[in-house]
Amino acid sequence: MHFTLGELAGRLGAELRGDATLVIRSAAGIKEAGPGDVTFLSNGKYRAHLETTSATAVIVGPAEADHEHPVPVLVVDDPYRTFLQVLHLFAPSLDLPPTGIDPSAIVDPGATLGERVAIGAHVVVRPGAVLEDDVVVMAGSYVGADSRIGARTLLYPNVVLRERVEVGARCILHSGAIVGSDGFGFAPTADGHVKIPQIGRVVVEDDVEIGANSAIDRATTGVTRIGRGTKIDNLVHIAHNVEIGANSVLCAQVGISGSTKLGSWVTLAGQAGLVGHIEIGDGARVGAQGGVTKSIPSGETVSGYPATNHARAQRVYASMRHLPDALRTLRSLEQRIEELEARLATSTPPARTETEFHETLREHARVSGGRKE
Amino acid sequence: MHFTLGELAGRLGAELRGDATLVIRSAAGIKEAGPGDVTFLSNGKYRAHLETTSATAVIVGPAEADHEHPVPVLVVDDPYRTFLQVLHLFAPSLDLPPTGIDPSAIVDPGATLGERVAIGAHVVVRPGAVLEDDVVVMAGSYVGADSRIGARTLLYPNVVLRERVEVGARCILHSGAIVGSDGFGFAPTADGHVKIPQIGRVVVEDDVEIGANSAIDRATTGVTRIGRGTKIDNLVHIAHNVEIGANSVLCAQVGISGSTKLGSWVTLAGQAGLVGHIEIGDGARVGAQGGVTKSIPSGETVSGYPATNHARAQRVYASMRHLPDALRTLRSLEQRIEELEARLATSTPPARTETEFHETLREHARVSGGRKE
Amino acid sequence: MHFTLGELAGRLGAELRGDATLVIRSAAGIKEAGPGDVTFLSNGKYRAHLETTSATAVIVGPAEADHEHPVPVLVVDDPYRTFLQVLHLFAPSLDLPPTGIDPSAIVDPGATLGERVAIGAHVVVRPGAVLEDDVVVMAGSYVGADSRIGARTLLYPNVVLRERVEVGARCILHSGAIVGSDGFGFAPTADGHVKIPQIGRVVVEDDVEIGANSAIDRATTGVTRIGRGTKIDNLVHIAHNVEIGANSVLCAQVGISGSTKLGSWVTLAGQAGLVGHIEIGDGARVGAQGGVTKSIPSGETVSGYPATNHARAQRVYASMRHLPDALRTLRSLEQRIEELEARLATSTPPARTETEFHETLREHARVSGGRKE
Repeated sequence: MHFTLGELAGRLGAELRGDATLVIRSAAGIKEAGPGDVTFLSNGKYRAHLETTSATAVIVGPAEADHEHPVPVLVVDDPYRTFLQVLHLFAPSLDLPPTGIDPSAIVDPGATLGERVAIGAHVVVRPGAVLEDDVVVMAGSYVGADSRIGARTLLYPNVVLRERVEVGARCILHSGAIVGSDGFGFAPTADGHVKIPQIGRVVVEDDVEIGANSAIDRATTGVTRIGRGTKIDNLVHIAHNVEIGANSVLCAQVGISGSTKLGSWVTLAGQAGLVGHIEIGDGARVGAQGGVTKSIPSGETVSGYPATNHARAQRVYASMRHLPDALRTLRSLEQRIEELEARLATSTPPARTETEFHETLREHARVSGGRKE
Repeated sequence: MHFTLGELAGRLGAELRGDATLVIRSAAGIKEAGPGDVTFLSNGKYRAHLETTSATAVIVGPAEADHEHPVPVLVVDDPYRTFLQVLHLFAPSLDLPPTGIDPSAIVDPGATLGERVAIGAHVVVRPGAVLEDDVVVMAGSYVGADSRIGARTLLYPNVVLRERVEVGARCILHSGAIVGSDGFGFAPTADGHVKIPQIGRVVVEDDVEIGANSAIDRATTGVTRIGRGTKIDNLVHIAHNVEIGANSVLCAQVGISGSTKLGSWVTLAGQAGLVGHIEIGDGARVGAQGGVTKSIPSGETVSGYPATNHARAQRVYASMRHLPDALRTLRSLEQRIEELEARLATSTPPARTETEFHETLREHARVSGGRKE
Repeated sequence: MHFTLGELAGRLGAELRGDATLVIRSAAGIKEAGPGDVTFLSNGKYRAHLETTSATAVIVGPAEADHEHPVPVLVVDDPYRTFLQVLHLFAPSLDLPPTGIDPSAIVDPGATLGERVAIGAHVVVRPGAVLEDDVVVMAGSYVGADSRIGARTLLYPNVVLRERVEVGARCILHSGAIVGSDGFGFAPTADGHVKIPQIGRVVVEDDVEIGANSAIDRATTGVTRIGRGTKIDNLVHIAHNVEIGANSVLCAQVGISGSTKLGSWVTLAGQAGLVGHIEIGDGARVGAQGGVTKSIPSGETVSGYPATNHARAQRVYASMRHLPDALRTLRSLEQRIEELEARLATSTPPARTETEFHETLREHARVSGGRKE
């Protein structure tokens, strides 16, 4: 796949400043790009790279249109958006199985396949499963009994959908993703843990992406739900009866405990962990490795362990490095106060007895209160 | 599957207060339950839901027997236990492969299968493997050479048991679980890391459950052991030569480093991490995200990083949020003491020289000691 | 597999002190070893075990040659190195598929296989894939279109290499490893997240090991690279465009965010997490659960959250447990200073007004500065 710079400008609706006969073969970021690549500049802080990039051409915004540049530029309104178009242009076509059922796949006669469904090698589709139009199931994947997959959804190799799982339209499930494994529920007895049957389901709504080796457990009763447009990275754990709203983003290695509910547009950064039975409001954000132990209101950003307001957490963590010095200073002040008290004792008599003094201190602590000790 | 409320009361040995002809089709928690569902009340704090639930019936304890309720109730001794029975009643039957070997499976003639073993599509069973009576191996799973699976154990789709792995009776291995991968052992040399052969095994005792995409490494020499009745959640990592006692619970994304030993009834909450070569006593508990760097005595609860006694850790983390203010106060007190010292210097002569003072401080620090600086 | 002690001494070039006719059947650590095992002593702190071990023989260094021992010893220069040899001697042969293509595997005619390639049951190899000499692909694994696997590399069961992935020679990929899954990149819009095509590749250089259920994402554009000799443990997440140098070690459950670059001989301990777009210098080390938020110079060791210099972090974490007491002391000192000030107020007039005092404090804070609050 390649284009001349002139062809590319035409396809992108861009204004070209430079040699239209140059050939573009791929796309890359401004630091990594080399000859034959087109790149883009949308963030001013990378502007210096315009002078040094080895790219053959750079997509820039209107502000750059009137400057001289050592490299051909394609002027557009929104360089980042245009670069996304470019990525699609240069994306190699995926190696998907052809429409139809691979002879090595085992599709139960009780399954229902829509139009143009493509089933790869060694796939298993169980009775009662429904695969809507244009679904693609790649090699080694398993679609459990009575599961349903919406139109145009893609399962990469070695995905497992257990029984009675529902996946919406236009979803992407990456290799090793497991949807519908049993929730982790046991009733302890003197003899050991008795398994609590996990008879619920999982519903994954439309336009969801689930990363490699992530696992989403089925509900004990009812539904574990992943809302429309939510994106889940690799190695994420979602426990039974979790409910996630629309358009949330869960970065890699996040873990969410049972029955916790997330609103829409929530962001959980990498390795964040949430306890069970809490609620995370719309638009809330949790920093990387944050340990969330209680509900978070809408729009709030939290971080740290246990997670608290991010701005406050930053102040706390920044002050922590002063703690060893502070403890030393504290001991020194204690000593200096003792010295002062000793000196004053020789000049002025104490206003009250030792006992009264400690009473007062205790009173003081109570009044200044609320400090957990 | 459905029952009239009268039939259900009979099966559960419950005393019904309400219309015996109502039809129950499923079970759910008291907040989620709707018409056709039976639910339960065992925790007093959810009592208010009795008035508002949409469930068709509620299982309650003897204390509720004499009250009026707006919904039919089934009175039993232990509502939670009875609800577990209900979950089993309404559990849809699993879609397991039928007894026998699926034609697409490849079972080596050198493997030994007990009575009523069920082998699903595309399964591979290698020579020397022994599958005892009623074992079920679902599609795409792999049973390595000389491995042994105890009676009634179930492998969900796409499980891998490497060679010479032993799994007990009545175990459940969820999809993507890997048992017997090589331990992570290398000897560094100037040229790079030389692999240390991992020639040991894994023994998983009876009644163990292993979650989706968890990985249990084989021992360098000897055995990595998961004790009877221990339950392991999703995405858990267990390194070579780890030994876990009976009835322990490892929540999702826990990681245990090499040669660490856990007793019985240990609980590790989600994302907890344990260094290698330590011992966790019977009944010990580690809080979520806890970072355990040394052995824990039996019965102790720890949390935080590095993990310490939970009650103390809670005090420490609660006090952390006061740290920025405390540092400000400390600076202010330092200033005020300087002022006081300056005033006193004009009235009374210092008892000793500056140098002596610092000597004393150092002495003081040594005596109050044990503080690492 | 077994040897007499005499045979073993001969093979290892060791000097035997003991009965040459004793039979050795396996190898184990000095604490776990029993009759029939050979073990080793290289770390002086385990010396006491020499007296109590049940091993049949112990490999020791020259320093032990002249002592009496209650157990036969094999004297060598480097007991640990010799023990590695022993592990190889006693390693059971792996149950690898035979050379050739299993009849159940589906190898596209457009794939290229070198000499002595072994393809296991139900494997899928897509067009354009190149498998060099002596490559072994075990059951249920998938090799995507236009991927390349170097000579003598081994894929355990159920590994997925997506399309256009390159893996070097002598690599080992454990079960459930996914290489080449899409990077996690989306452009937010008012309607939801638009997927950014991930058109790059993954290059895994020679002698790399990748643990069970680890996931390595392909680059957005360009390459995600794992350097020669780097070893990756289980359940590790490596995001798009990450680059890792040679001989680095990534322990279990580590997560690395997009575009971060690691040098050579870097060590990341278990559950460490790195934000994106930072650089970790050669030989740097990150402690277990460390949360790395900024670049780390070569040779530096960091730990904690956020990760800082390890020695300093240890001081900070050690001092944290004194924090609740320190806050109490601080309140008490505040009280005592008030008392002192009150007494002095009666004897000496204040040097300045309250307002001036606070002005000074603020000035003081500015000067002592740089403290984020």
